[in-house]
Amino acid sequence: MDKEQNMKVVILGCSRVGALLATQLISKGDEVSVIDQDPSSFKRLHKEFSGKTISGIGMDEEALKKAGIEKAEAFIAVTNEDNTNLMAAQLVREKFKTPKILLRVYDPKRAQAFKELGLNIICPTIDSAKKIEEFLQEKT
Amino acid sequence: MDKEQNMKVVILGCSRVGALLATQLISKGDEVSVIDQDPSSFKRLHKEFSGKTISGIGMDEEALKKAGIEKAEAFIAVTNEDNTNLMAAQLVREKFKTPKILLRVYDPKRAQAFKELGLNIICPTIDSAKKIEEFLQEKT
Repeated sequence: MDKEQNMKVVILGCSRVGALLATQLISKGDEVSVIDQDPSSFKRLHKEFSGKTISGIGMDEEALKKAGIEKAEAFIAVTNEDNTNLMAAQLVREKFKTPKILLRVYDPKRAQAFKELGLNIICPTIDSAKKIEEFLQEKT
Repeated sequence: MDKEQNMKVVILGCSRVGALLATQLISKGDEVSVIDQDPSSFKRLHKEFSGKTISGIGMDEEALKKAGIEKAEAFIAVTNEDNTNLMAAQLVREKFKTPKILLRVYDPKRAQAFKELGLNIICPTIDSAKKIEEFLQEKT
């Protein structure tokens, strides 16, 4: 049987998406650390979450190292602040050269600008508007 | 040439998604009204937005009527509050029988429950987590 390879993933931001992603990755057998400046946000994680949680900010290299960034294959920045995600992603790219980096950007205009910086982004604003337009075009 | 049919669409919530959607639909020639309780949020709309803006809440039948709900083909509830979207969608479904209704739900658990009520939903939390997982699985 083909088994997917497990990954070491550092997630910045225990937002709804961060928590859901962390839970899903853990259930697939990945190694996951979640960093958030507000420890109460770790409550969003599944009760049996077996990954690491680190209180800290994304610009804090010590927090990133505690999260295992030096050996991580991926860094995902999903705090609710576009700028925080951008700064952390750039720091991680330059300092730690993590192979896979992705950040969430809410502002559609910034999404384009960040892409031009060579960053991998998801923009839920654009994605949601697109999905709704598709819904509107479906025949009833 | 095949021309898409234009629609009358009422959007509740001039959130980022609401504003982007409104702008895109207008540019396609649809008839769009946007309702929001905070008139300052209309600033998110494109400067040349030619649709209607109505200050009001989604549970206010008068605001809905001013927005043209009685002749609308679609109602899209994208305030930042899941419960507001749910209540408005249910009101519109029961009172005005608008053919196409969709609401945004952030909470993945509620998304499932709302679907079971027969509602069309988008859940950006689930969609974003899925997209990130796909990104993680891509070969580098």
